[in-house]
This record gives sequence, C-alpha cells and structure tokens, in this order.
Amino acid sequence: KINPDRLWDSLMEMAKIGPGVAGGNNRQTLTDEDGEGRALFQKWCEDAGCSMGLDQMGNMFAQREGADPDALPVYVGSHLDTQPTGGKYDGVLGVLSGLEIIRTMNDLGIKTKHPIVVTNFTNEEGTRYAPAMLSSGVFAGIHTQDWAYGRVDAEGKSFGDELKRIGWRGEEEVGARKMHAFFELHIEQGPILEAEGKDIGVVTHGQGLSWTQVTVTGKDSHTGSTPMPMRKNAGLGMARILDKVDEIAWSHAPHAVGAAGHIDVFPNSRNVIPGKVVFTVDFRSPDLSVIEDMEARLRVEGQKIADDMGLGIEFEKVGGFDPVAFDEGCVTAVRSAAERLGYSHMNLISGAGHDACWINRVAPTAMVMCPCVDGLSHNEAEEITKDWAMAGTDVLLHAVVETAEV
Amino acid sequence: KINPDRLWDSLMEMAKIGPGVAGGNNRQTLTDEDGEGRALFQKWCEDAGCSMGLDQMGNMFAQREGADPDALPVYVGSHLDTQPTGGKYDGVLGVLSGLEIIRTMNDLGIKTKHPIVVTNFTNEEGTRYAPAMLSSGVFAGIHTQDWAYGRVDAEGKSFGDELKRIGWRGEEEVGARKMHAFFELHIEQGPILEAEGKDIGVVTHGQGLSWTQVTVTGKDSHTGSTPMPMRKNAGLGMARILDKVDEIAWSHAPHAVGAAGHIDVFPNSRNVIPGKVVFTVDFRSPDLSVIEDMEARLRVEGQKIADDMGLGIEFEKVGGFDPVAFDEGCVTAVRSAAERLGYSHMNLISGAGHDACWINRVAPTAMVMCPCVDGLSHNEAEEITKDWAMAGTDVLLHAVVETAEV
Ligand SMILES: NC(=O)NCCC(=O)O
Ligand SMILES: NC(=O)NCCC(=O)O
Repeated sequence: KINPDRLWDSLMEMAKIGPGVAGGNNRQTLTDEDGEGRALFQKWCEDAGCSMGLDQMGNMFAQREGADPDALPVYVGSHLDTQPTGGKYDGVLGVLSGLEIIRTMNDLGIKTKHPIVVTNFTNEEGTRYAPAMLSSGVFAGIHTQDWAYGRVDAEGKSFGDELKRIGWRGEEEVGARKMHAFFELHIEQGPILEAEGKDIGVVTHGQGLSWTQVTVTGKDSHTGSTPMPMRKNAGLGMARILDKVDEIAWSHAPHAVGAAGHIDVFPNSRNVIPGKVVFTVDFRSPDLSVIEDMEARLRVEGQKIADDMGLGIEFEKVGGFDPVAFDEGCVTAVRSAAERLGYSHMNLISGAGHDACWINRVAPTAMVMCPCVDGLSHNEAEEITKDWAMAGTDVLLHAVVETAEV
Repeated sequence: KINPDRLWDSLMEMAKIGPGVAGGNNRQTLTDEDGEGRALFQKWCEDAGCSMGLDQMGNMFAQREGADPDALPVYVGSHLDTQPTGGKYDGVLGVLSGLEIIRTMNDLGIKTKHPIVVTNFTNEEGTRYAPAMLSSGVFAGIHTQDWAYGRVDAEGKSFGDELKRIGWRGEEEVGARKMHAFFELHIEQGPILEAEGKDIGVVTHGQGLSWTQVTVTGKDSHTGSTPMPMRKNAGLGMARILDKVDEIAWSHAPHAVGAAGHIDVFPNSRNVIPGKVVFTVDFRSPDLSVIEDMEARLRVEGQKIADDMGLGIEFEKVGGFDPVAFDEGCVTAVRSAAERLGYSHMNLISGAGHDACWINRVAPTAMVMCPCVDGLSHNEAEEITKDWAMAGTDVLLHAVVETAEV
C-alpha cells in the first residue's frame, strides 16, 4: 500500500506552481510555470533514484531500473499541464501517483523484472495548442513532430519555439521507446463513480472526440446606422450554430455530448456588428458513427444557417480521435488489483481524452479512475478526497507491479 | 468654398497615425497613437493661428478669435479616436473639416464676431471605455468626471490613469465653457444618402441608444465527461439570448436595430464548457418607448432563458442616451447653407450616436452628414469621396460663418 500523506503533500506542493485565481491552477503547457513544475518533478524523481529521459516533444521519462536489462519497461503517467482555470488533480494525480508507487517500492525494497518509467506528456490539455494530447499523439505516430512544432497559440507563438524557450526540448527521438505496457490513473472528471459510490473505475473504453473549428464571416459595420436587412452579423450566425450544436448532441443522448468552449469575436467592440467569429465545436461519443454523423450535420446545418444569413463559413478539423477499446490484459490487471485490495469498482467509459488513448495504439494500455467531487473538472474547484487518491494509487501500484513482475 | 485637396491631405496624414491592418485605423482612445494624433492636430491648429485649450477630460479646444470679446464662440468638431478596426473618416472628418474652415477663413481674411473653436472630444467610440461619447457626456453634465475617470478597459486600466499617462489631461474645468452653438460634420455611417443620391444630410434627429451588459453565469466543466443534463453552459445561454435580441429588434422594424458586438467567453478553452459569458447588447431607435420596450424585453426574456437553463444572469446598463431633436435654428442654418451652395440634401435621422447628441443638451446644436460608400463604417474599408468631404465641409463653413456673424 502506498503512503497517502506523502502523495497528498506532493500534490499540494505541485499545486503551488502556477496557482489559479480560485484555488486551482493555471499552469498551461510551455509556460514558465510548466517549466517550474517539470523541474520540481525531475528533482523528486532523481531523489527517488530515477534517471530522467527527455524527448524532442518535451515528454519526460523517469526510469526505475528493473532486474532484467532486456525487459521493456512498464510505463505509468499522465500530464502536468493544466487548463487556464484548471484543477489540482487533472493529469497531476496520474504523474505523481506514478512517483508515489516508485517511492513505495523503494520503501518496501520491491524489485521488478521490468523497469518502471513515470511519464509526463507535454500539452495534454490542448488549450494553448490544439489538439489535446499532442505529444502522446506524436509519440504514437499520429502526428508528425514538424506539424506539432508548427502549432500556434492565440498569440501566434509556436509550440516548437516555446518548447525551446522554456528549456525542455530534449534530444531523444519521439516514439523510439518501446513499452511493455502503459497505465494511467486519472480522476474521472464526470459524476458516475461518485453517484454509484464506487472507489475505482476500471476503464474499458474511451469515447472518441471531434474538434471542428468554425469560422463565420460577416461584415463589420456600425450597430446603430446599419439597417437590419443590410447586416451580415457573424455573431448571430455563431449563436444559431451553437443552438444547433446542442440540438445535434441531444439527438444522440445519452450517447453523445456537444458544446463550444472556445469563441473569439472580431473586432469585439460594443458598436461593431461582428465581422468574424471563430469557435471550436467539441463533439464526443463512444460510437464512431455517431461522431461522424454529428460532424457531418454540423457542416450541413452550419452551411445552411450561413447561407440563409448571407454569411461565409469555413470548417476545419483541428483535433479528434476515434473511440478506444483498452487492452484486455491490462484492464484485467486493473480490475483484479481493485478486487485484491477490496476496493469497490465498476467498468467505465472515459468521457475525456487521455494520453492513454494514443499510447493504446502502440502498447497494451489501461486506465484507472477515481471519483471527483460533483464530477467537476476543468474548473478550479475540482476536488478529490485523499482516500480516493489513495485507492486509485494502490490499484495502480498493484496493477503495475503485477505487470512488471517481481 | 473650402480647399478640398488640403482637407484630403490632412485626412490622409492623420490616417498614418495608428494604421489598421486593412487600410483603416486603429487609433483607440488614450493609446500612444491617440496622443500622437492629438499632437499633430495641435500643431496644425497652432500653425493656423489658434490657441489650444485642454480640459480635465482631455477634450481639446482650438480657438480662432472673434471680433467681439464678449461673444460666445461657435464650436465645431467631433473626435479623433477610432474603433480597433475603424475607418479614416469616422470622427476625423468632423475635426479636420473644422480645421479646414479655419484655414479657409484665414485664406479669405474672413473675420467673425464670435470666436470659432474646433473641438476634439475624448473617447467618442466607446470601444475601450464604455460608454461612447464619454467626454462630451461629462462636458454636458450627464456623467461625473470621477465616474468617467473610474471606467476601466478590458485590461483593467482606468480612463483617468491612461489620460494622465499619455499626457493629455488638462487643467480646465470640464463643461465650464459656454457655447453660442455647436456643429458637427460626420459621415453618415449608413446607406441612405448614397442610395438617395444626395450630397448632404440635414440631421434633424438622432436615434437613442441603450447598451446593456449581460453576464451569464454557468459552471465551467469538462466538455467530454460532463453529461448533457448536468451542464450549465453559459455560452449556449448567450447564444439563445443573441437570437432573442435579433427577434426583439426585428419586431420593431424598421424603427429599431439590435445586436451584440462585444462578447467575452470564460475561460475560453476548447474543452471547457463556458462558465461565464459577458456581452453587450446594443439597441437603438428614434422612439424612446421602443428602446424602453426592447430593454425591458431583453431583461424578461433573458431571465427566462437563464432560468430554463439553470444559469445565473445579471444585467447592467453601461451606456445610453435618449433620442435627440436638434436645434431648429442650427438645423435651418445647415439646410440653408446646402441650398445656397446648390448641394442636393435631405433630412436625416442619425443612426449612430455623436458628441453632438450630448452637446445638444447644453447648446443649440446641429449636424451635417455626408455619404459614405455602401453605408459602411466601423470597418477599415470605410470610404468617402473627396467631393463628398468637400460638400460637407462647404456646408459646415457656411452654417458656421452665418452663425458666427461676419
Ligand atoms: N483529461 C482531459 O481533460 N484531457 C483533455 C482532453 C480532452 O478534452 O478530453
Ligand atoms: N459615430 C459613432 O460611430 N459613434 C460611436 C457611438 C455609437 O455607437 O453610435
């Protein structure tokens, strides 16, 4: 069993870096604060006897050696970057629980055949640079590194330049590592485990995602002196499309969700009819055909709304992944660990995307989930209990040790 | 008659300060560029023999002396600040045509009984600091100076601090000046004069305006893992209210307009359901009861939409003025000047708000309008012809000289 107080202390220590405005965190990827968080994590790993690897996407790999020099490592981990108004646990728990299981194994003198590697993947959140899970995606061969380097944030700064600027671009080729298995512990970010009173979610699947960036073009003009029939109001076009997005998602309920979190209005002046609005529609479902249907309907209905209003419209897919089925062997390792430890558990489909979803393409992978209060995440008020963190980390420890073979 | 080439050269010279990205201007109030534009205007006025007054709101007053030391001055002018993606003429024509009539009078050796003062009012546009026409409003006793100083921009910088920073806060008490009359030449910013083939709009009225800032509060949460029924999507609430705003404005067509130009979404991240949206609804009509009806319906319907969706909502009136009837004597001076000069003309209701609307409260006031191409304004592509500028300035000259008495 792991040491819950030590784990909690590390979580609270990390949360001091890039504090938010309401008790959470703003430690967005490739900011100075991200660099600070990485340095602290590296120090902790080295203190625990690990050596740190760093690849050209800034992915970090803290290795605890195994007994067999030929055995592939078992990987655990998640991400240290946060949303602009994010919580203290989303991603961070997955990285620091990996550190905690190494500390525990050190305490107990457990030696495994396979090395164990704790990973921090760069830019999981996708806020500053779309898409989410960018660097695990490059690791898994989904995106090229050049394309990833060229992604730009809202201020036009590229991923490649910012990675170099904060000093965390490594030499190691991305994806060159082979993994025996990968496990990720993450908070659920949804309400199911808490509602069902279960300690552990055994994640069998992850729902798929589609991000479509929509650009609606009208004509900036005066809000006072432009007659109603002459207006080309891109803001009103956006509004009607958002209502349609909601309708499309509900039409597949409860097997789909849809919304837009990102909306930029230009020139954003009180007395100028918006000439341009750029926003990103997020559709998700565990069923690929549902995602494809929603995406197609967005384009058809969006085009219709724009045409009716004399507006221009463009659609660009800026992120997405298909629904995922995790590895049966790894899933079973998680479930039996929970059973062995006496934690209540249930099967779960992950509502969010995770680095594990991409790593599943190149290695046997599974996820452990623990509840979070009110299912709330991507909010500074995100909260978990120390007991939930402990249960999740205990299960992670047992699944990893079993897979890494003592 | 004025010198159209000289006027045009000055317009083009001023447009070099704070250039936009598409041929227009970004010379927002109290920016360094605003300061640069003011300095150029001051130099021109001094070259034309005027002395410059500056009040505590940064309003500028370039005076050409009259023959009678006891006669109150006739004022002309408008504003030099622009929208973030504004045109080269909106406001600027009204200031520089004032300068041009002084240059013309100097050339022709015309001496008037009343002094003539060319004015540049601070923050007419209202983009950076709501409300629009802020400083003419303080001049007319509508707002207190303390309240105006406390207005903050999107970055939290106050009007008072920024005015001081750019070095254009004067000593003169605001509104202490008494005016014999006030005339403002402005581009129409709407399509009517061009469609009717008229050179001159004789502005008899100005429509009224209401700006209501709406804050919709939901709960930031994950776009993937938050089930549809649990969402409190402030972005979707905003969208439904915008559609309602359009419906409300159309219900009074053609005697009303309505839209939202300013929309800020928080935290504005692709995978976070918006927890808060702040936007400003702009309603206008020449009929006060129509404005009041639209404002009231926005509050009732907005509250209903928010309640239905479990969202919080707050309304704050951040700007507004009642419909205006300009002074009959001044209006007649404009109309007879147009007639005398042989320019085609028609009566017009101003669709936009102008400094003249506030000054009308404290002095006999009228406006002259000239057409603009496609009625387009608050757009970098805003355009007028040199002939239109000439006609408007000629009429302004004659109305002013008649009122100032030779
Ligand atoms: N876990 C998580 O919040 N990942 C961000 C990617 C997503 O939007 O699902
Ligand atoms: N003329 C002009 O565009 N003034 C800005 C105030 C308004 O929105 O009407």
